[in-house]
Amino acid sequence: MCGIVAAAAQRDVAPILIAGLKALEYRGYDSAGIAIAEGDAIRRVRAKGKVREMEALYDADPLPGGTGIAHTRWATHGVPNETNAHPHVQGRVAIVHNGIIENYASLREELKARGRVFTSETDTEVMGALIDDLLSDGRSLREAVLAAVRQLEGAYAIAVLSLDEPGRVVGARRGCPLLVGIGIGENFLGSDAQALIKVTNRMMYLEEDDVVEITRESVQVFTLDGKPADRAAHESELSADAVERGEYRHYMQKEIFEQPRAVADTLEGRIGQHGVLPNIFGIDADPVLDRTKQIHIVACGTSYHAGMVAKYWIEELARLPVVVEVASEYRYRDVVVPEDTLFVAVSQSGETADTLAAMRESRRRGYLATFAICNVPESSVVRESDLRLMTRAGPEIGVASTKAFTTQLAAFALLALDLGRRRGLDHTRYLKLCKELQSLPRFIESALRIEPQIEELAEHFILKHNALFLGRGVQYPVALEGSLKLKEISYIHAEAYPAGELKHGPLALVDEDMPIVAVAPNGPLLDKLKSNLQEVRARGGELFVFADEHAEMDDTIEQGVMVRLESGGEFISPAVFTIPLQLLSYHVAVMRGTDVDQPRNLAKSVTVE
Amino acid sequence: MCGIVAAAAQRDVAPILIAGLKALEYRGYDSAGIAIAEGDAIRRVRAKGKVREMEALYDADPLPGGTGIAHTRWATHGVPNETNAHPHVQGRVAIVHNGIIENYASLREELKARGRVFTSETDTEVMGALIDDLLSDGRSLREAVLAAVRQLEGAYAIAVLSLDEPGRVVGARRGCPLLVGIGIGENFLGSDAQALIKVTNRMMYLEEDDVVEITRESVQVFTLDGKPADRAAHESELSADAVERGEYRHYMQKEIFEQPRAVADTLEGRIGQHGVLPNIFGIDADPVLDRTKQIHIVACGTSYHAGMVAKYWIEELARLPVVVEVASEYRYRDVVVPEDTLFVAVSQSGETADTLAAMRESRRRGYLATFAICNVPESSVVRESDLRLMTRAGPEIGVASTKAFTTQLAAFALLALDLGRRRGLDHTRYLKLCKELQSLPRFIESALRIEPQIEELAEHFILKHNALFLGRGVQYPVALEGSLKLKEISYIHAEAYPAGELKHGPLALVDEDMPIVAVAPNGPLLDKLKSNLQEVRARGGELFVFADEHAEMDDTIEQGVMVRLESGGEFISPAVFTIPLQLLSYHVAVMRGTDVDQPRNLAKSVTVE
Repeated sequence: MCGIVAAAAQRDVAPILIAGLKALEYRGYDSAGIAIAEGDAIRRVRAKGKVREMEALYDADPLPGGTGIAHTRWATHGVPNETNAHPHVQGRVAIVHNGIIENYASLREELKARGRVFTSETDTEVMGALIDDLLSDGRSLREAVLAAVRQLEGAYAIAVLSLDEPGRVVGARRGCPLLVGIGIGENFLGSDAQALIKVTNRMMYLEEDDVVEITRESVQVFTLDGKPADRAAHESELSADAVERGEYRHYMQKEIFEQPRAVADTLEGRIGQHGVLPNIFGIDADPVLDRTKQIHIVACGTSYHAGMVAKYWIEELARLPVVVEVASEYRYRDVVVPEDTLFVAVSQSGETADTLAAMRESRRRGYLATFAICNVPESSVVRESDLRLMTRAGPEIGVASTKAFTTQLAAFALLALDLGRRRGLDHTRYLKLCKELQSLPRFIESALRIEPQIEELAEHFILKHNALFLGRGVQYPVALEGSLKLKEISYIHAEAYPAGELKHGPLALVDEDMPIVAVAPNGPLLDKLKSNLQEVRARGGELFVFADEHAEMDDTIEQGVMVRLESGGEFISPAVFTIPLQLLSYHVAVMRGTDVDQPRNLAKSVTVE
Repeated sequence: MCGIVAAAAQRDVAPILIAGLKALEYRGYDSAGIAIAEGDAIRRVRAKGKVREMEALYDADPLPGGTGIAHTRWATHGVPNETNAHPHVQGRVAIVHNGIIENYASLREELKARGRVFTSETDTEVMGALIDDLLSDGRSLREAVLAAVRQLEGAYAIAVLSLDEPGRVVGARRGCPLLVGIGIGENFLGSDAQALIKVTNRMMYLEEDDVVEITRESVQVFTLDGKPADRAAHESELSADAVERGEYRHYMQKEIFEQPRAVADTLEGRIGQHGVLPNIFGIDADPVLDRTKQIHIVACGTSYHAGMVAKYWIEELARLPVVVEVASEYRYRDVVVPEDTLFVAVSQSGETADTLAAMRESRRRGYLATFAICNVPESSVVRESDLRLMTRAGPEIGVASTKAFTTQLAAFALLALDLGRRRGLDHTRYLKLCKELQSLPRFIESALRIEPQIEELAEHFILKHNALFLGRGVQYPVALEGSLKLKEISYIHAEAYPAGELKHGPLALVDEDMPIVAVAPNGPLLDKLKSNLQEVRARGGELFVFADEHAEMDDTIEQGVMVRLESGGEFISPAVFTIPLQLLSYHVAVMRGTDVDQPRNLAKSVTVE
């Protein structure tokens, strides 16, 4: 899960590559590097850490030249240091790589037996050596890359330079994203459109197993058997300034506050006075949704939590059984698929490797159709699905997902209501819930206003190492999402439980050092949750309860704090109660001084297994 | 979730009550107390902590008398101290109570308004006051209890004494267990048969809402409307010495080492040369299992993890979709039940309140039938189910469940194989898997032999506060169960993830203070798990890998330890790999000096919500 940029131009490309890497840092920031071919030399700059560390080295000693490749790394094989940083050079070849080569150990042994010496522990250097080896037999760079990728098992997106063919970059992809940016007298490769949007808005998406050769003047695509292939180019809808941070201290904070707008955008033109509008899932959706008898939702991380909320909604409103599964588990399991089951994939980026692979695997399993909930229209998940509903969150830069989650909830709410209507949900209730959903942006807005109170509350967590999050029913996934946020950016070991499970084991963890966060909106489970909280209080745990403004609950908590907010109704309350938990993790992380937007070890879009 | 004992006899009952409480300590040990009626006085002894603390006070100042009630407490309302300890006395009444009264706050206000003064924060004292109030109107104790329980909402098992009626104890139950022990010229009440087995083996089980009056000579049962009722008495099969600890340092250790025997007992007479034997699930099982099209498994804690393993097994072998759900969530959710769905309840004690309530709720939801996997033949879950398979683990005393789990797995394996056979599982494979299952006791035996190696490994955890457990596929629930054990008895915050989810967030937690335990038997997912472990190693995490003896895996782990064991085959490997994780948590807890058999805050059989 790394980021790649490459360029062939008449001008010096290093500044273009560095700008591209910065846009790709959400994909990893353990180390960065560039390699430039100029005359008969390939020169490179690499550094551990973020792109700006490498940029500082570059500024001290710039590399002129019109052909180059660049990389920002999320470490898989080998620790994050300069030696393991890309680009790797082997013989006449320089290479950058995103993905994991599964048979690299045996290839490495073969090449070593033939006298090849390696300087890093990476699978990437092995690929470089393999390509260099194949070049020695008289192949062109393109032919050598084609011959090499045929021997690889695993996933990759690569960009390769050769000393023998200056002015030319060869790329290839399988399982990892790579696209071509088509400029005027210059061409580019990148892991996504955002990396190239500052130099061109014309993008060409590559298919699985494509190999591409770019020069200043030409772009040529080949399939794995070496035959030329045509791939269409489109104009990207990204705007170059959609990703600036503005007045906010961090992207994450900006994105939390963008949620009323993002959710409103996601609902716009899709729901009206008389309910969910027709054809919003695509014109082919009606027969599919009418026939659907069960639903399988597959996703990872935060998107998985959105799927869990959807399970509660769809089962209740449409009386359709829903199974939600983690994509990395789903894809390797021999899942039983009942007749007329709809497959739903959820992914912010639409490039999450596990989700994408699960979706491709689902094709062989006899589903009624595949349905995507996704934020990136040009992504693989969207392109490969039968039906889709785009979230309109705009670019999400903070690694910890916020507006992607609430817009996914908005999308799922539309789906749950539409399925409910098709399956006999009482019409008065349907209209009432549609109205409730339309009010969601307003209640998110209202929840954001309690930020000062949350900031105060965050102080209680500064010195904590652990936390438990509790919720019941549809609020359990909200508790899971809250605990994941705290984990991701504050490095506090937070874990979520359905409140009723506490006494079946985890209660042993509770003492005065263990804060407990409970999500307790009004509703039929409030009384039960109160009993669970009594159990915690009796053991000395510090309690932080998020409750509805109107909940009948004693505000005096002997050990802890009660926060009240307008939940806006039981249906939309999971989205509303997510807001204070996002704010809590954000402020705890800021107080603890972690790198909020780019937390350690993580990357935004996980395009490896 | 407390324990109750009561007695009416010609001899002094205090020693009988104390012995009974000790047998009930698995239900809670926050405080204990007894009250004895003698002449025209009720005297009591109460103490915070375990029964032996109270016993010490009693020994210093014994209470003679032939009628008494006693209690060991697991705190729900109010902190565990002497003031909140049972029995509670109000006016002429003494009472002990297991359960939670949901409308106690309003009752308390009413009684206070009438001048009643309370000394504790408990719901129990409110019940005592209510009964005392009703006595003042000229009612007998039995009539007062009947009138009182009609006003209660919630769950209870109670035993009550009145100054006015020495020689008499009145009991009542709703949602919590209570049974009568019938002796020769003496009678008893207890939360379970174990509490009474030293004084009688004749037991009478009470139904929901029963009220019972015992004296030395008589036992009379009444329904809620005050009408006499007949309840049958049986001889209990418990033997009084089955629960001694023997040569082991702790019950938990003894129970871990009993697993080869317990699993063999569970398989005995149920599987042979030609496969699973007929009628082992009851003679009515055939038509039900032939018709079953989906399965819902509902359980709590460790039993829930057994259900998760079963999901993998049943879906793979019988191609039946399985949904596993936590009982406390299931019971309050409007679950969709497809036609011909079998409901499976899993509970060691058969009295787990959430599981029992879920099972009762399931009756209203249109299932094909209910099926129990349980360790206690006389329990409510077994008595109320249509089909059943008893685990034969014998009494489990350690609060952290061990042999209950592996025998539940053995029972589920029988069910999965039988369902597989019914639904076209290849016969050669079926016979091979049956043979593999029969070898399970032997492989558990073999896994137990690596205890010395695990003891060494446990030292790495003494100073840790957190841990992550990883598994993929059917080993993910094993990782969950391993992390739950560590939580329960060592108070280390351990959490389990399916290994592929790590990079979607939790990886941010990994640094040199976070040990990672991976369950990695041979199998198709081993390669994938290896890649996940590379990600961890690259971040400095200490690794502890449990792998198959024959797994192709490098034994040299730079930071950490590799433990090899004979997995005995992919099918039974979840049960086998559970053993080293049980041993690990046991030895970590012993080294950290926690109370292994009775960890803080917990109780064995959770008979409240």
